Amino acid sequence: MNLERTPLLTDLYELTMLQTYYEHGMTEEAVFELFMRGSPKRGFFIAAGLDQGLEWLEQLRFKAHELEWMQQTGLFTQAFVDRMADFRFTGDVMALPEGTVFFAEEPLLQIIAPLPEAQLIESRLMNILHYQTLIASKAARCVIAAGDTPVIDFGMRRAHGGEAGTWAARACYLAGFSATATCLGSARYDIPPTGTMAHAFILAHDSEMEAFERFARSHPDNVVLLIDTYDVERGARRVVEVARRLAGDGISVHGVRIDSGDLAANARLTRAILDEGGLTDTRIIVSGGLDEHRIETLLASGAPIDGVGVGSNVDTSADVPFLDSAYKLHYFRDKPRGKHSRGKTDLPGRKQVFRRLSDDGELQGDTIGLFDEKVSGSPLLEPVMQQGQRLGGADLTSLEAARSRCQNGLANLPAGLRDLQSPAAFKPELSQGLEALRERLAREAERGEV
Amino acid sequence: MNLERTPLLTDLYELTMLQTYYEHGMTEEAVFELFMRGSPKRGFFIAAGLDQGLEWLEQLRFKAHELEWMQQTGLFTQAFVDRMADFRFTGDVMALPEGTVFFAEEPLLQIIAPLPEAQLIESRLMNILHYQTLIASKAARCVIAAGDTPVIDFGMRRAHGGEAGTWAARACYLAGFSATATCLGSARYDIPPTGTMAHAFILAHDSEMEAFERFARSHPDNVVLLIDTYDVERGARRVVEVARRLAGDGISVHGVRIDSGDLAANARLTRAILDEGGLTDTRIIVSGGLDEHRIETLLASGAPIDGVGVGSNVDTSADVPFLDSAYKLHYFRDKPRGKHSRGKTDLPGRKQVFRRLSDDGELQGDTIGLFDEKVSGSPLLEPVMQQGQRLGGADLTSLEAARSRCQNGLANLPAGLRDLQSPAAFKPELSQGLEALRERLAREAERGEV
Repeated sequence: MNLERTPLLTDLYELTMLQTYYEHGMTEEAVFELFMRGSPKRGFFIAAGLDQGLEWLEQLRFKAHELEWMQQTGLFTQAFVDRMADFRFTGDVMALPEGTVFFAEEPLLQIIAPLPEAQLIESRLMNILHYQTLIASKAARCVIAAGDTPVIDFGMRRAHGGEAGTWAARACYLAGFSATATCLGSARYDIPPTGTMAHAFILAHDSEMEAFERFARSHPDNVVLLIDTYDVERGARRVVEVARRLAGDGISVHGVRIDSGDLAANARLTRAILDEGGLTDTRIIVSGGLDEHRIETLLASGAPIDGVGVGSNVDTSADVPFLDSAYKLHYFRDKPRGKHSRGKTDLPGRKQVFRRLSDDGELQGDTIGLFDEKVSGSPLLEPVMQQGQRLGGADLTSLEAARSRCQNGLANLPAGLRDLQSPAAFKPELSQGLEALRERLAREAERGEV
Repeated sequence: MNLERTPLLTDLYELTMLQTYYEHGMTEEAVFELFMRGSPKRGFFIAAGLDQGLEWLEQLRFKAHELEWMQQTGLFTQAFVDRMADFRFTGDVMALPEGTVFFAEEPLLQIIAPLPEAQLIESRLMNILHYQTLIASKAARCVIAAGDTPVIDFGMRRAHGGEAGTWAARACYLAGFSATATCLGSARYDIPPTGTMAHAFILAHDSEMEAFERFARSHPDNVVLLIDTYDVERGARRVVEVARRLAGDGISVHGVRIDSGDLAANARLTRAILDEGGLTDTRIIVSGGLDEHRIETLLASGAPIDGVGVGSNVDTSADVPFLDSAYKLHYFRDKPRGKHSRGKTDLPGRKQVFRRLSDDGELQGDTIGLFDEKVSGSPLLEPVMQQGQRLGGADLTSLEAARSRCQNGLANLPAGLRDLQSPAAFKPELSQGLEALRERLAREAERGEV
C-alpha cells in the first residue's frame, strides 16, 4: 500500500460510518469545513498543504489489497466492501489559496460532496493540511524575526517521519525560507538545496586544515566550512590560512558555519578574524537549536550573521506541536448543522470569509459570514476543485505564487500581529446572519430537539 | 521518487561529503553511533524503529531519476554521480532490539561500514529511529499511567504527516497500547483496529436516537456510541433506551465514548445512568486532549473508565516534540574519534552497553564501556545486520516480541524511573577504559593536535 496514495491512511471510524450512511441512502450533499481553533502563541496562521490535499483527492481509489484488508477485519459487510471498489471523490472544494494569512475559526477548506465522500477524507486531509499549515505558520515567525537575513531549513532528521521532513521543506519555503537541506524536498518542489559538511567530515580527517582544504578543492563553488568541531577561534584562523592556499587556484571561501556555543560571541570573534585575514566577503551562517525568539535576540544583538539554519524547533513546531484543528459537518440535507455542547463554539452553516484591507493594503478586519450573505470585504475562499477535478492555473497551484502571497500577507499584517512574544489577539467578526443561525441551533440543541 | 525508499530523503551535506570522501579514497571502515542526549522530562527511552531502518538500508539504491536530480543541481562531479549508481549499504549493524528500555548517551544503533556508506545513511536513519523512539517513549508513559486500563491510539490526523501517523500506531502498540484507529497502521503491522463514529455521524442524523440505532444495527458486533455531541446525560439516557429496542434482536451496546467536558464527572454520571438502565457491561471509553498526566489523574480519581483514547499529545509527543538525538563518528582508520568542544560531552570509540539486573530482574545499573572491554553486566547491543543483510529470527524482528520486551522492561524499572511527574535521573556509568580514552582525546583536542 503506497503511503502517499492509499485510502487506508484514515481512521477506522470513517469506514464504519460510511457503511451506515450507504445502508440508509445518506448520500446527499454535505458541507464540511476545516478550521483551526485559536492558539495563544500564534497571532496568525499561514494556509499550506492544499496542493497535496487536492492531489490525494484526485487519485483516491480502493485497490484490491485495500479492499481485502477491509474484508479480513470482519468489521464490514460484503456489500459495503464491494461498493468501495467504485469509490471516487466527486465533490467540489473551496479553499484559502496557499500562503494566505488566516485566523482562528476561519474555514481553510470547504468540502461540498455526497456525505460519505466528504466524511471519508477527513483524517488524511487534516493530516496533510494541519501539518503544513502548522509548519508554515511557525516558519513565517522565523522569517519575521530574520528580516532580510536568509533562513534555511535543516530539520528533516528530527521531523516526524519522512513525509513531514519533505513537507516541512515545502512549508518553510512557502513561508519565505530561502533553501532546504532536504534533497527530496528540493527535488520535488524545486526549492534551492543547501548543505556542505557535518562534524563527522572534520573528525574523519587527521586535521581540520586537511578537511577544509579537501572540501574546498572538491566543491570550489560551494565552500562553506564548519568551524566549531574543536574550537571556533582556531577554526576561523585555519579558514584564513586555507583561503590563502586556495586563492592561487581561484577558489574562495564563501562562508563558514558555527553550530554551537554562544553564537553571537562566536560570530563576532569569527568576523574579526576573517576580516583581519582579508576575508571580508566570507559569510557567517549560524545554526543549532534556533527558533524565532533566538533568531530575534541574535540579530537584535547586532551579531554579524549572514544566514541562519533552523531545524527541529521549526520542523516539529516545538512550542506548539499541533494546532486545535477541526473538520466539522456544517450543512446536510438542506439544514445547517453544528455541534453545540456547552463551552465549545462551533459556527454552523456553509460559510465564507470576508477580508477588509486599508487603501495601502494593510489588514483591517475579517468577517466570517454565511456563504451567500452580503458582507463587506473580499471573499477569501476560492473554488479549487469541481466534481473531483482540480481547477485553476499556476496562480492557484504554484509554490512560488503561494510564497509571494505569504510574503505579501506578512508585510500587510498590523504590527501587533507580527509581534513574536505576545501577539495581539485578532478575532474575526461574525456576520449578523451567522450569529442568528448559531443562536437558533444552540436553542434547538438545548431543548433536546436533536 | 518513492518517499519511503528514495535515498534522496537525506540532507544535501551527506552527498557533498561523500564526493570528497571518494575523491580521497576515504572508504575504510568507520563506526558511527546513534544515541540520545538526556531529557529532563523522560526517565527512560524505548528503542523503536529498527525494523523500518534496516528495511530501508537493505533496499537503498540510487535510481536513474535520482541520479539525474543530483546531476542537474550542478553541485557534483559526473564521476561522483556515476559512482552513486552502484551505491549499496554493505556494512554491519548492531542495535538495541526494539522495545529495549535505554538511557541517555547509550548507543541505540551502531553502524560499522565504509565511511561513505555510514555517512550517507545518517539523516534518514535518524529520521526513522528518532521518531519511533520518541513516540514509544511517550506512549510507554501513558501505559504506566493507565495500568490495566487499555489505551488506544487516535492520533493520525494531527500526526506530522502520514508516515508519522502510521509509525505512531506501531510505536504505541510496541509500548503497550491495545489498538489503533489508523487503518494503515493496522494493515501494515497487524495491530488491532478500533473505531466507530465521529460527531459528524450524529449531526448528519435528524436525531441522536436515530443515529445510535442505525449504527448499532449496521455494526451489531462493534457498538460503541459517542454520547457527547449535544449533552452527555441525555446521550446516556438515549443509550439505555436504544439498548432496550436492540435487545430483542440480540444486539447489545458494548460501549460508549465521551470526548469532551469533565471526563471524570461525565464518566460517573454515565455509569450511574447505564447501571440504572441495566447496562452494567457497557464500557465507558474517554478521549479528548489526554496524555499520561491526565490519564493518571482521571484514573486516580476513581472515575469508572474502561478505556482511554489518546491522540495529538502522544503522536506528536507534545511535551517533548523531539529528542536531542545524535549520530556521531566514533572510530575511523584505527583511531577512536569524538567531538570535544567545551561543554558538550561526547563519548569516543566503539562502545557497548552493559546492564546489571537484580536476581528478580529489576534494573540495577548500566555501564557504557568500550566494545571489547571486560565490564560486568549483559551486553545490550546485538548484531542485526551483516554485510548489508539482515540477521535474526522473529525474536529480533517481530513487533510482538518487541512489545513483550518493552512490557518486561517497564515492569522491571525501579519505581523512581517510572515516576511521571519528576522521573529520577538515571545515569549510566562509564567504564574505566572509556573514561581514560575520553580524557586522552580531550587533551589532544585542547592542544590543537587535530
